[in-house]
Amino acid sequence: MSDDIYSGLEQLGRDTPQPQSPEEARLERVPNPQSDVDYCVRFTAPEFTSLCPMTGQPDFAHLVIDYLPGEWLVESKSLKLYLTSFRNHGAFHEDCTISIARRLTSLLAPKWLRIGGYWYPRGGIPIDVFYQTGPAPGGVWIPETGVAPYRGRG
Amino acid sequence: MSDDIYSGLEQLGRDTPQPQSPEEARLERVPNPQSDVDYCVRFTAPEFTSLCPMTGQPDFAHLVIDYLPGEWLVESKSLKLYLTSFRNHGAFHEDCTISIARRLTSLLAPKWLRIGGYWYPRGGIPIDVFYQTGPAPGGVWIPETGVAPYRGRG
Amino acid sequence: MSDDIYSGLEQLGRDTPQPQSPEEARLERVPNPQSDVDYCVRFTAPEFTSLCPMTGQPDFAHLVIDYLPGEWLVESKSLKLYLTSFRNHGAFHEDCTISIARRLTSLLAPKWLRIGGYWYPRGGIPIDVFYQTGPAPGGVWIPETGVAPYRGRG
Amino acid sequence: MSDDIYSGLEQLGRDTPQPQSPEEARLERVPNPQSDVDYCVRFTAPEFTSLCPMTGQPDFAHLVIDYLPGEWLVESKSLKLYLTSFRNHGAFHEDCTISIARRLTSLLAPKWLRIGGYWYPRGGIPIDVFYQTGPAPGGVWIPETGVAPYRGRG
Amino acid sequence: MSDDIYSGLEQLGRDTPQPQSPEEARLERVPNPQSDVDYCVRFTAPEFTSLCPMTGQPDFAHLVIDYLPGEWLVESKSLKLYLTSFRNHGAFHEDCTISIARRLTSLLAPKWLRIGGYWYPRGGIPIDVFYQTGPAPGGVWIPETGVAPYRGRG
Amino acid sequence: MSDDIYSGLEQLGRDTPQPQSPEEARLERVPNPQSDVDYCVRFTAPEFTSLCPMTGQPDFAHLVIDYLPGEWLVESKSLKLYLTSFRNHGAFHEDCTISIARRLTSLLAPKWLRIGGYWYPRGGIPIDVFYQTGPAPGGVWIPETGVAPYRGRG
Amino acid sequence: MSDDIYSGLEQLGRDTPQPQSPEEARLERVPNPQSDVDYCVRFTAPEFTSLCPMTGQPDFAHLVIDYLPGEWLVESKSLKLYLTSFRNHGAFHEDCTISIARRLTSLLAPKWLRIGGYWYPRGGIPIDVFYQTGPAPGGVWIPETGVAPYRGRG
Amino acid sequence: MSDDIYSGLEQLGRDTPQPQSPEEARLERVPNPQSDVDYCVRFTAPEFTSLCPMTGQPDFAHLVIDYLPGEWLVESKSLKLYLTSFRNHGAFHEDCTISIARRLTSLLAPKWLRIGGYWYPRGGIPIDVFYQTGPAPGGVWIPETGVAPYRGRG
Amino acid sequence: MSDDIYSGLEQLGRDTPQPQSPEEARLERVPNPQSDVDYCVRFTAPEFTSLCPMTGQPDFAHLVIDYLPGEWLVESKSLKLYLTSFRNHGAFHEDCTISIARRLTSLLAPKWLRIGGYWYPRGGIPIDVFYQTGPAPGGVWIPETGVAPYRGRG
Amino acid sequence: MSDDIYSGLEQLGRDTPQPQSPEEARLERVPNPQSDVDYCVRFTAPEFTSLCPMTGQPDFAHLVIDYLPGEWLVESKSLKLYLTSFRNHGAFHEDCTISIARRLTSLLAPKWLRIGGYWYPRGGIPIDVFYQTGPAPGGVWIPETGVAPYRGRG
Ligand SMILES: [Ca+2]
Ligand SMILES: [Ca+2]
Ligand SMILES: [Ca+2]
Ligand SMILES: [Ca+2]
Ligand SMILES: [Ca+2]
Ligand SMILES: [Ca+2]
Ligand SMILES: [Ca+2]
Ligand SMILES: [Ca+2]
Ligand SMILES: [Ca+2]
Ligand SMILES: [Ca+2]
Ligand SMILES: [Ca+2]
Ligand SMILES: [Ca+2]
Ligand SMILES: [Ca+2]
Ligand SMILES: [Ca+2]
Ligand SMILES: [Ca+2]
Ligand SMILES: [Ca+2]
Repeated sequence: MSDDIYSGLEQLGRDTPQPQSPEEARLERVPNPQSDVDYCVRFTAPEFTSLCPMTGQPDFAHLVIDYLPGEWLVESKSLKLYLTSFRNHGAFHEDCTISIARRLTSLLAPKWLRIGGYWYPRGGIPIDVFYQTGPAPGGVWIPETGVAPYRGRG
Repeated sequence: MSDDIYSGLEQLGRDTPQPQSPEEARLERVPNPQSDVDYCVRFTAPEFTSLCPMTGQPDFAHLVIDYLPGEWLVESKSLKLYLTSFRNHGAFHEDCTISIARRLTSLLAPKWLRIGGYWYPRGGIPIDVFYQTGPAPGGVWIPETGVAPYRGRG
Repeated sequence: MSDDIYSGLEQLGRDTPQPQSPEEARLERVPNPQSDVDYCVRFTAPEFTSLCPMTGQPDFAHLVIDYLPGEWLVESKSLKLYLTSFRNHGAFHEDCTISIARRLTSLLAPKWLRIGGYWYPRGGIPIDVFYQTGPAPGGVWIPETGVAPYRGRG
Repeated sequence: MSDDIYSGLEQLGRDTPQPQSPEEARLERVPNPQSDVDYCVRFTAPEFTSLCPMTGQPDFAHLVIDYLPGEWLVESKSLKLYLTSFRNHGAFHEDCTISIARRLTSLLAPKWLRIGGYWYPRGGIPIDVFYQTGPAPGGVWIPETGVAPYRGRG
Repeated sequence: MSDDIYSGLEQLGRDTPQPQSPEEARLERVPNPQSDVDYCVRFTAPEFTSLCPMTGQPDFAHLVIDYLPGEWLVESKSLKLYLTSFRNHGAFHEDCTISIARRLTSLLAPKWLRIGGYWYPRGGIPIDVFYQTGPAPGGVWIPETGVAPYRGRG
Repeated sequence: MSDDIYSGLEQLGRDTPQPQSPEEARLERVPNPQSDVDYCVRFTAPEFTSLCPMTGQPDFAHLVIDYLPGEWLVESKSLKLYLTSFRNHGAFHEDCTISIARRLTSLLAPKWLRIGGYWYPRGGIPIDVFYQTGPAPGGVWIPETGVAPYRGRG
Repeated sequence: MSDDIYSGLEQLGRDTPQPQSPEEARLERVPNPQSDVDYCVRFTAPEFTSLCPMTGQPDFAHLVIDYLPGEWLVESKSLKLYLTSFRNHGAFHEDCTISIARRLTSLLAPKWLRIGGYWYPRGGIPIDVFYQTGPAPGGVWIPETGVAPYRGRG
Repeated sequence: MSDDIYSGLEQLGRDTPQPQSPEEARLERVPNPQSDVDYCVRFTAPEFTSLCPMTGQPDFAHLVIDYLPGEWLVESKSLKLYLTSFRNHGAFHEDCTISIARRLTSLLAPKWLRIGGYWYPRGGIPIDVFYQTGPAPGGVWIPETGVAPYRGRG
Repeated sequence: MSDDIYSGLEQLGRDTPQPQSPEEARLERVPNPQSDVDYCVRFTAPEFTSLCPMTGQPDFAHLVIDYLPGEWLVESKSLKLYLTSFRNHGAFHEDCTISIARRLTSLLAPKWLRIGGYWYPRGGIPIDVFYQTGPAPGGVWIPETGVAPYRGRG
Repeated sequence: MSDDIYSGLEQLGRDTPQPQSPEEARLERVPNPQSDVDYCVRFTAPEFTSLCPMTGQPDFAHLVIDYLPGEWLVESKSLKLYLTSFRNHGAFHEDCTISIARRLTSLLAPKWLRIGGYWYPRGGIPIDVFYQTGPAPGGVWIPETGVAPYRGRG
């Protein structure tokens, strides 16, 4: 049973206050109980929101994060709190998307990681940002995200 | 054969210059060859564009026009030229949509007419405008437009 | 067994030459074997094509025909040959759609009939034509056609 | 517990041979355990198949059956066997669809029943048959079937 | 602020054990803070599961519950626990769907309620169950559920 | 030209600070330039977010607002700022949805208004809230919102 | 006829009690009657459910299993019982998905196997787990699963 | 004109009786009129049906066959009759799918062939079978089949 | 400005009679104004129709043509007239699809060309034909056509 | 914080007049704040419009631009103004699409860039143009655009 791997966690199953910024957020990790095989974990966050650093207006994105865990898994409640912590944080689309990738990469030392940021349109022209840490290792299954393209109206 | 009904037209099958404003555009009509029955004609214009009167920036809309012809049909090439004539014309979403309905109603005296203007989002929140001249006459088939709602991303 | 109702047919199960015009086409009917109940029959013809009477260029339409049979059913092979006979026939969208309805109504004396003609775009703006013989009788099930609206690109 | 209502059944939970014709099939009914309220039951049979009585070639249909039970429910395994019994039976589209409705109506004396038969295309033009026993009683929820229309290719 | 209306609740925000049967489950209600207007609340439970009372095999359903609150709202966490309590409970499709409606109706005395149970196919033919307490009151907005019909394969 | 109707506005085309709460937000209105006809205006806000008053966690919704303007139109930039002002405001789903309707109704005195709040799932079971001020006036075109139902996975 | 390969099976065609845990479940195998060619078999289990080991709450997943059989095929009824045995078993998403892959790999010694676990969202962020035993052998057809991405609302 | 290549055919354009088993069916071939280029031909058979050899119950599949013709094309009417001949034939999913591939391969000696069998669900878990004769030759266009995955309900 | 490249054209902007056969059609070419880069041009012809050489009945296809221009572009009006010229021409599916590819290849000497012919079903089983002149040159973007697979009904 | 990189911009956050031609438009660039990693940025412009140089009629396209930034990012407001500047500019489909790619490539010196131009149909046959600067660098994530193919009607 893999319960013990969660014994050091400080947020799971507790009444955790919402962190107010990415810096304040405590991303936690647990040992990967299946670390002897290569597999891919995908998180989909359809509710990501941050602020524009120029105007203070809210920005929204649909994020898809794929990674191949090495020794560590990200603990999912802490990931949720971390992503939510951008709510009142100012960041550009490109910086924001890629800094999430960097933070996760730094914490987890994954075999591979990628992030897709599908931002809501501003001025009619949406921006998508796609990043991965390098070529995907051979022989691992990493499906397309299948996110529908933006189509305007009609 | 219904060819003769088009004999008075001035734009169909000719090299017609693009009108530069709605006022300049010549909307033409032809006698309805099936005026003894009630039926509905739908035009779909996925390429409508006008200018914002405040900022001069282009606006875009997907328009659907349904009408029940009385004595007259709108000639479709002149309709296309008329719609295209808004290209460099300033008009708000509500005004623009409804003024097209008024112009067609005035020209055609249809038994009934409606227009749906599905405008592209500005600031993340699209506006749709729906207008009809009154309750649809009973016993006529007027299908829903089926235009998909705006969904943002993801 | 309802086989006998087809005994007078001249085209079904035979090597029938393709009629060259709607006038030449032989629309056939058979007695309605379920004439004591009201029900709706829908034909979908996604391959309809005719010619533009002004330019001779081909036009295309997706047709949906709904009717409530009275004493007669249309024989489906003869219907197909009739629809195919428009292939080299010149007719405007409105005329073409509604004349099919008239021919069927005349042959079948149905309790009710409607036709939807969803024409391919010319000049970027498609025309749809919707006609029915009158209000649908109450208490009969006539589903929406569900044909997807035209959307341009993207 | 409503188990007892099934005590007289002869096919449920037994090794039942496949009936070879609709006549041979034993449609069974059980008392409606909720007969004091009006509700709608929908069966969807995407695998219906019969034979053309003229040519012996197989026909296929997607069937949707809605009914408002009165004193009786149809037993679902016997319904499946009944529908399957058309496999080697010759019947035209209209007859076949409506005779299923008649058989069920006769057995169940439902408050209301309808059937939609969505037949696969032959010669490029599919036929749909829609029947109901009369107007639906007021105040009962009977959703649209939502079956997608035939679209040809592309 | 409407916080006080939740002050009597015993499950919300607490560590509540999963009830082992519908009887054991504590459905809770709170005063409707907007009881002076008519509105509709929709719950969608795509993860409902129960057991077949004949075979003990699991059944699955996608449930949609619409109701017009009167004096009471259902507390959503207790609803979730109630629905989850069917996990090891034996019940037929019709009974199960309608008994949920009865329990909610008894607790909430809503102005109106309906439930749609879309059950996964067994033997290739899925059953849907649709129930409402009576005609919907006029002038209230109750959209279609829009659940896609079952289509088999391909 | 309808420019003058905007002459009293204080936020449009200016550098407006983001209001920090719904109370602080300045919803503005402009005279309806087409007040002699009945038509429907639809706003879609796919990026709405507020906080849970119990836990402080963010909630998300896709909102659709339809109204029939009387003497007044809502100014769209002020509507956007108003909706954005819920970002750090605690409100339950039902309260939040309906209070937006009340605020708009109070400001605009529309002939009719409705709102649909499609909230993201919490605990696997999403809540939708549907409200309208009363029966829609006859003879006005108010299309279905067409928002796709929640389906879980797969 | 390939019937004989099933002669040693103990569950197929019998009244088999539902196993109460994965350990108790008897996964069975049969000789691969087509073992001289490489082909892929796909199972789709849209009804998988287990319990969260921390909270005891039910989790749900849509599973897709692809494998290239070597000497053995998995017997499909025993597979269904095995998957159902997770119903009251506590397991994390990653462990659960991958342990199914391991059990099948151990039993079948397939040439290749992969599993996709598409888990229902908890906290708004669903997790997908993708695993395969290694690179797919060249020259075998293994289509994409085509499972639609999670999209939230609207 | 390529008419002559069909001169030896015995079924095309004739009144051919339906074969009663795969063995009885006459699959015919014609010379490939474009044998100097490599191209792919796809047949889609959404109406395939056979019998379960254990229970005699009907099974259904949606088949997609892709092949690169060498010297021979399969004659399409004979292919249809061959596929239809499985109607009363008992065969397991894997055997059935792959034996069709073997028969076509033996007749046609294609440069390459693959078959996808998408079987309707039994017991909630559909099986798909994918087979190809070997790696596809380089430089030939063989699109994905695009068949939608099974999704259960809702 | 690239206008001059069209100076030798005989059909563009003129009143061109519809050619009555592919042989009669004048496919025209213009110099590629961007011949120093590799790019792909896609034409989609959803309205292609020809005749069956055996029966004279009309066939329909949705065609997608991709090519990498070398020194020449195909002039699009002449392409349209060429494709339309098959209207009364007898040709089998395979011959027809591939002969279009050959004619274009011969005229344009493209770096690469492919054609997809998605034919409407006859006898319930549609045929698709896929051809390309050889492996696509590396480093050029040639997206999938994304044409939806045939699905029958339901 | 990356604010400083925008300090030299002349259009962002200012009242910028709409440029009247591509030549007049000021495309601006900012230093790439994440230039030490390879990532892909996608812009989607569903509202592109230009004029036909032969007839002066408006053309419409849905554009998707993907690029791998090197030292520079394109400033998105200036990109929008640049694309809008084609509104009254005459250009052929191929020229227009590729000249946008050239202008961006010249300004940004990206590691790689591609553009897809999905043009609205004229004469029933839409043209798509696909271009990239060369093979995509290995190990970077560049998803398919997923733009739906053109389908005509029905
Ligand atoms: Ca559009
Ligand atoms: Ca409707
Ligand atoms: Ca989203
Ligand atoms: Ca578009
Ligand atoms: Ca409807
Ligand atoms: Ca088509
Ligand atoms: Ca509706
Ligand atoms: Ca199918
Ligand atoms: Ca599912
Ligand atoms: Ca793919
Ligand atoms: Ca949304
Ligand atoms: Ca693909
Ligand atoms: Ca579901
Ligand atoms: Ca089907
Ligand atoms: Ca792909
Ligand atoms: Ca079509």
